[in-house]
Amino acid sequence: MADTPVDTVAHVPVVVVGAGPAGLMLAHLLGRAGVETVVLDTRTRHEIETTHRAGILEADAARALVETGVSERILRDGHEHQGVELRFGGRPHRIDFQQLVGASVWLYPQTDVFTDLADARERDGGTVHFGVRDTEVLDITTDAPRVRWTAPDGTRHELRARYVAGADGSRSMCRDLVPEDRRVRYGKDYPFAWFGIMAEAPASAPELVYAHSEHGFALISQRTATVQRMYFQCAPDEPVDAWPDDRIWATLQARVAGEDGFRLNEGPILEKTVLRFRSFVQEPMRWGSLALAGDAAHTVPPTGARGLNLALHDVRVLAEVLLRALGSEGPAALDDYQPRALQRVWRAQNFSYWMTRLLHTAPGGTPFDLRRQLGELDNAVGTRAGRTFLAEQYTGWPTAARD
Amino acid sequence: MADTPVDTVAHVPVVVVGAGPAGLMLAHLLGRAGVETVVLDTRTRHEIETTHRAGILEADAARALVETGVSERILRDGHEHQGVELRFGGRPHRIDFQQLVGASVWLYPQTDVFTDLADARERDGGTVHFGVRDTEVLDITTDAPRVRWTAPDGTRHELRARYVAGADGSRSMCRDLVPEDRRVRYGKDYPFAWFGIMAEAPASAPELVYAHSEHGFALISQRTATVQRMYFQCAPDEPVDAWPDDRIWATLQARVAGEDGFRLNEGPILEKTVLRFRSFVQEPMRWGSLALAGDAAHTVPPTGARGLNLALHDVRVLAEVLLRALGSEGPAALDDYQPRALQRVWRAQNFSYWMTRLLHTAPGGTPFDLRRQLGELDNAVGTRAGRTFLAEQYTGWPTAARD
Repeated sequence: MADTPVDTVAHVPVVVVGAGPAGLMLAHLLGRAGVETVVLDTRTRHEIETTHRAGILEADAARALVETGVSERILRDGHEHQGVELRFGGRPHRIDFQQLVGASVWLYPQTDVFTDLADARERDGGTVHFGVRDTEVLDITTDAPRVRWTAPDGTRHELRARYVAGADGSRSMCRDLVPEDRRVRYGKDYPFAWFGIMAEAPASAPELVYAHSEHGFALISQRTATVQRMYFQCAPDEPVDAWPDDRIWATLQARVAGEDGFRLNEGPILEKTVLRFRSFVQEPMRWGSLALAGDAAHTVPPTGARGLNLALHDVRVLAEVLLRALGSEGPAALDDYQPRALQRVWRAQNFSYWMTRLLHTAPGGTPFDLRRQLGELDNAVGTRAGRTFLAEQYTGWPTAARD
Repeated sequence: MADTPVDTVAHVPVVVVGAGPAGLMLAHLLGRAGVETVVLDTRTRHEIETTHRAGILEADAARALVETGVSERILRDGHEHQGVELRFGGRPHRIDFQQLVGASVWLYPQTDVFTDLADARERDGGTVHFGVRDTEVLDITTDAPRVRWTAPDGTRHELRARYVAGADGSRSMCRDLVPEDRRVRYGKDYPFAWFGIMAEAPASAPELVYAHSEHGFALISQRTATVQRMYFQCAPDEPVDAWPDDRIWATLQARVAGEDGFRLNEGPILEKTVLRFRSFVQEPMRWGSLALAGDAAHTVPPTGARGLNLALHDVRVLAEVLLRALGSEGPAALDDYQPRALQRVWRAQNFSYWMTRLLHTAPGGTPFDLRRQLGELDNAVGTRAGRTFLAEQYTGWPTAARD
């Protein structure tokens, strides 16, 4: 790092650290308004495109991809889900989003969101550097922060910026730039994880199935006509090797079994992974010339599929305040970011926590806990108000549902 | 107990063990249908009438007292509450029951419900023995159960019955009659209790105020124009003596304080008690010729005021199935009791648990828990669906709110 950076004098209004969906969407939205950005990521494009992640987009997020000109692919290749199924007590209960809150969600893998955004950046002439290393963000408490990195060819670079966006995911280094004595980190660990599989089989259900059983949680999701994604609750340190295909199918079938005779379509299992998760929020989400967005600022358990949607909500708000800050309002405009982003963050944190607690069985849980959980599920689906309350949280509080 | 009972040959269709509101209401409902009962309680009438208990009746329960001819006093002396206030983050949020679900609740002390029912039993010529001891219930797995007790004058009595109702409260001995290997007891303890006071002061608010603060929970309730009931969260083993009046008022004021400048009207404190609570359910609720009702079968934390309402719901169902069982249907009719009562029991268990967790601060709770709780409160009051979901549970799932 002693090398002299090759482009010390360059300047760009906004440097975005992290080229996941949050960072790229931010760059895209700023680019549409004529603001130049440089986006940096330590991963290669190939690495990001081959990491499978969940893929439920709320209507607002899907609409933003289409309406801001990222891509119309979601309309062709994505699948509109007008509801979701909750299975418990051996019975299916459909939550009809369209009927309840007039909204749908879209099944569309996060890697496809990434690809669409990366392609759009390329098409629009945006600068994205993948595979960089040794990224440093300096002087964020001044109005001239700098970002340094080493390119894949070994050359060292430095850029001056007016603002830096930290969208560098759940292992963010940007969030560490907020001084320890000025930040609060809120966190919660869970005593379970998800065992995820990708299986070659036709879809078993037209929409997502969230299953509660006395043996634990399972989620039946879809991917394509021939490949399906499914998960079941396991121990956080579950060894993948302990799970031959037969045992996985027996476990999944037992967790979704019901009086309706529902059975999963089985097939060869292409991929097995244990997915750990936690709840996490760092405040503040803005420090000087730095603003954090997406997983860098907060992560949620995957139950309820809020993570990507919350990240995309952050950057819609952040793009708006950055444009005002770069315009006549100046840095004071950035003061609006946290208050506007954070209310949704905590609502989504609670929804994700609630869905997780509602559907998983806790190790050491008592018979009371299990029966009460069934009472809670019964409450949640038993009246229109309960179903609407769930639907509006799952679909991301569409404006129409507020009053 | 070796004495020969003085009335061995007597027979009555139903013996009710316990003369609290559940037992007396059951006797009242059966009496209206021409079925004779004998009600027994170990407490004297004076003891029951001087034990203060919460007093929120859901609309169905209030209606039942008036429409079945117990008393119209609730309409004169009770207070209709069309909503409730949730205070958190220093702000009040009203849940308007009438607007949301078209229902009200009634503020009417449980001791007054008891007095009305005891008076009605006297007026209608029903038999209630207070202050008995050594109650024994025998032969409940036969169709000729017997009940023995010692009267206050020391004489020993025995009655044959066709059915026995165990409505003998949270320390029920009737529930022990279900054999240990055939019953399940579900329970949950809480790491906090309520410090309750009765104060001579004008009401501070027209409706109940449930307050969440970082210091813990408080509930502001009313009793009469000059006497008020209030509670605040304390440790389960909190010594009453450690709480002089000044400290109590300072604690309560801090927990309800907000940006609206809300202050409690203070006055002499007439009574101080620490109220412990737990969640509890015993299944089955019926065993042979015995049926359990109210606290004998289940108790809930007081948050959300479900206990008395749930007990009155039990006996409305039980009266109906007992009448059928005593008629042409025979004992098979009793099979309907548990399935019909139990769904509401677990829904109410969950609601009471949820309200408790939502509003109390757990000892050892993390900053994440506190912030998430505020996110949850925000969700609960932030949309019409959230408020409706809360209102329909608080007012007892009126038929109109179901679909």
